[in-house]
Amino acid sequence: MLGCGTVGREVARLLTEQSAELAARVGGPVRLVGVAVRRPRRHPQVPTELLTTDAAELVTRDGVDVVVEVIGGIEPARSLLLAALGAGRGVVTANKALLAECGPELYTAADTAGADLYFEAAVAGAIPLLRPLRESLAGDRITRVTGIVNGTTNFILSAMESSGAGYAETLEEASRLGYAEADPTTDVDGYDAASKAAILASLAFHTRVTSSDVYREGIADVSAADILAARVLGRTVKLLAICERVIDSAGSESVSARVYPAMIPRSHPLASVAGAYNAVFVEADAAGALMFYGQGAGGAPTASAVLGDLVAVARNRMAGGYGPRESAHADLPIRPMGDTSTSYHISLEVADRPGVLAQVALIFAEHQVSISAVRQTGHASDHTLTGDAGASLVIVTHAAPDAALRSTVDKIAGLDAVRDVVSVMRVEGEVT
Amino acid sequence: MLGCGTVGREVARLLTEQSAELAARVGGPVRLVGVAVRRPRRHPQVPTELLTTDAAELVTRDGVDVVVEVIGGIEPARSLLLAALGAGRGVVTANKALLAECGPELYTAADTAGADLYFEAAVAGAIPLLRPLRESLAGDRITRVTGIVNGTTNFILSAMESSGAGYAETLEEASRLGYAEADPTTDVDGYDAASKAAILASLAFHTRVTSSDVYREGIADVSAADILAARVLGRTVKLLAICERVIDSAGSESVSARVYPAMIPRSHPLASVAGAYNAVFVEADAAGALMFYGQGAGGAPTASAVLGDLVAVARNRMAGGYGPRESAHADLPIRPMGDTSTSYHISLEVADRPGVLAQVALIFAEHQVSISAVRQTGHASDHTLTGDAGASLVIVTHAAPDAALRSTVDKIAGLDAVRDVVSVMRVEGEVT
Repeated sequence: MLGCGTVGREVARLLTEQSAELAARVGGPVRLVGVAVRRPRRHPQVPTELLTTDAAELVTRDGVDVVVEVIGGIEPARSLLLAALGAGRGVVTANKALLAECGPELYTAADTAGADLYFEAAVAGAIPLLRPLRESLAGDRITRVTGIVNGTTNFILSAMESSGAGYAETLEEASRLGYAEADPTTDVDGYDAASKAAILASLAFHTRVTSSDVYREGIADVSAADILAARVLGRTVKLLAICERVIDSAGSESVSARVYPAMIPRSHPLASVAGAYNAVFVEADAAGALMFYGQGAGGAPTASAVLGDLVAVARNRMAGGYGPRESAHADLPIRPMGDTSTSYHISLEVADRPGVLAQVALIFAEHQVSISAVRQTGHASDHTLTGDAGASLVIVTHAAPDAALRSTVDKIAGLDAVRDVVSVMRVEGEVT
Repeated sequence: MLGCGTVGREVARLLTEQSAELAARVGGPVRLVGVAVRRPRRHPQVPTELLTTDAAELVTRDGVDVVVEVIGGIEPARSLLLAALGAGRGVVTANKALLAECGPELYTAADTAGADLYFEAAVAGAIPLLRPLRESLAGDRITRVTGIVNGTTNFILSAMESSGAGYAETLEEASRLGYAEADPTTDVDGYDAASKAAILASLAFHTRVTSSDVYREGIADVSAADILAARVLGRTVKLLAICERVIDSAGSESVSARVYPAMIPRSHPLASVAGAYNAVFVEADAAGALMFYGQGAGGAPTASAVLGDLVAVARNRMAGGYGPRESAHADLPIRPMGDTSTSYHISLEVADRPGVLAQVALIFAEHQVSISAVRQTGHASDHTLTGDAGASLVIVTHAAPDAALRSTVDKIAGLDAVRDVVSVMRVEGEVT
């Protein structure tokens, strides 16, 4: 084992406590033979004879069959795992950043050496998700994966919804309760979700997607007004990781991978995923709609996923074979966000006078964006004091290229009659 | 392939349409080399040279690596699959009745021959569920599995809830819409769910459970009054398949497997599983709560699961190994239903006079059943005409042995002051 933090300690504990059951599952004993850490003194719970500071020696040591990596980060994890795979050792890792950035390199190394590379814990913690994608659905054609894959942001959005509070104060509360890290950037700006989207897209579509290919918006700009606007229309706001197989009118195929907050209908199975839970909604040609739900993080859930992988790799070794390969793959192009079809929800405060809707509708038409629904409500605003009544205008569009939608919103925001753009957010999952 | 009905035709279609993708996944071509059917003339869509009526010859024919069984029923499926496994062929089956009744025999045959036996399609159609149970959670300890595993009954219960109609007319409607078979017994009396519970319990707890071990109640007695009573208390009625690992006070372990309609809280992830969808909620020591959701039946979803298994078996053969074994197992005793801990919801119409609640509470106490909540509502009933006012009394109990609860209800039903037992139903999933 490389590393011995929260997850590593749990893995070590389960290996000991479940040893009889594990041996029965694998068909032979599973023993922890070494733990590489930087500071051995900080790990009094690990028997001294197992501890080493020489990780490079451990991964190629005689008698080591499987390397479990729970260090995290790119280096030295990358070099160590390449060395392990090169020496034909099976690898189990929970390292999403590494897989999202260097996945192709690792898949190829595993394939060349005929060694196993398992990483269930890297996406959505304990939820058995990657295995179904890699194996159960291997005979099907996945068209879309929509996931709530970051517990911190889902906790914050759920809390904003139930309290009506704003983003900043809810984030503070989440930090206080331990649901957000001291530096929450990785979570709230969507980097974590983007890493997971890259891994999911790669596996779902058998192609190569890295985190830099993923379009990304975080939740820092989600306001109480956005959440209220969603609720009024029977929707809820979630940070979604979306991976989509797109076939354009010319018949050529590409992949869209993107992370952003979006409104989804309350009736969508993802809408009821609250708090720090994760869930991934998968659409496939034959299987139809599937959803996987569970805890996305935490030492014990993640360790459970690592153990499941460890059992699979150990079983494969006992049987003399190995698991699924990710080497056979297409190199599908990544669809730029601007070309990707999305729908928008737009709430505006406008002057309550004839012709405003016509003006707004004209801009949509000029950008070839078609409107799905409009709701206009006149109301007495502060402006009535100046004799200028206000109204609110809510527009939901049909799907259109994202770039066209953005230009439309920019142009509308500049209209004299538009006093405030209350909320602009993408809408997903309307038809499932 | 043995059989070529709805699922078989879909499998054949996917094998053809996805052949390039399948070959890439497996590492070599996957070809359909024979289809055993009873009446070849009825299958004009299958190339004549593939059709045979001699299934026994096909399963051991040279060049056949994997046998896909989609006949259903016990015989001849059982003998054919035993012959196939005996000859070292991999087996993929969607046959839940066979696995629920003869699972142990098949698992042992597969293990003895070192052959693969995969059956993802046998429970919850296309939902990748068995593979996670067998593999991803292999390093964890599953404590409980609660599933909505029969689409017909879930469709009927969902429809009763939205329409307020009774069971008989809703069943009729379901038949008309094609959601219930002409003879719906297997579904509505819980036999189908019990087969699935047997398979789930066997895999989750690594023990041997057959369908006759499963306690079973169907939905034919669920009334509009039950569903209304559930709704009033923020619950919904679902036909649940429950598999539980029970450790008694003496520390000895047993397995409870049971199927019955029960009230669950609306906030439970299973509560929002509507219509013909299936979902399985799994609780494990380390992984925590997980849920798997999707289509439980239908040709295409089932075929997707069969294909996923076929890819796994083919991959294993290419790699020279084989998949998870079910031979290493405990022989945990089956806990009788009477000894199993459950909670009850009881709605009564009682005479509205002092002392009735005390009388009822005394009977609970005599059976050592503790009451969790009581709601008493006085109301003017028809009996006011005779000067005898009525009241309704709703009681929810804490967990107690099922036998004690049943005797309590019987005794209460016999009280003079009790005019009508409106609804008696078990309550599940209160604490998750």
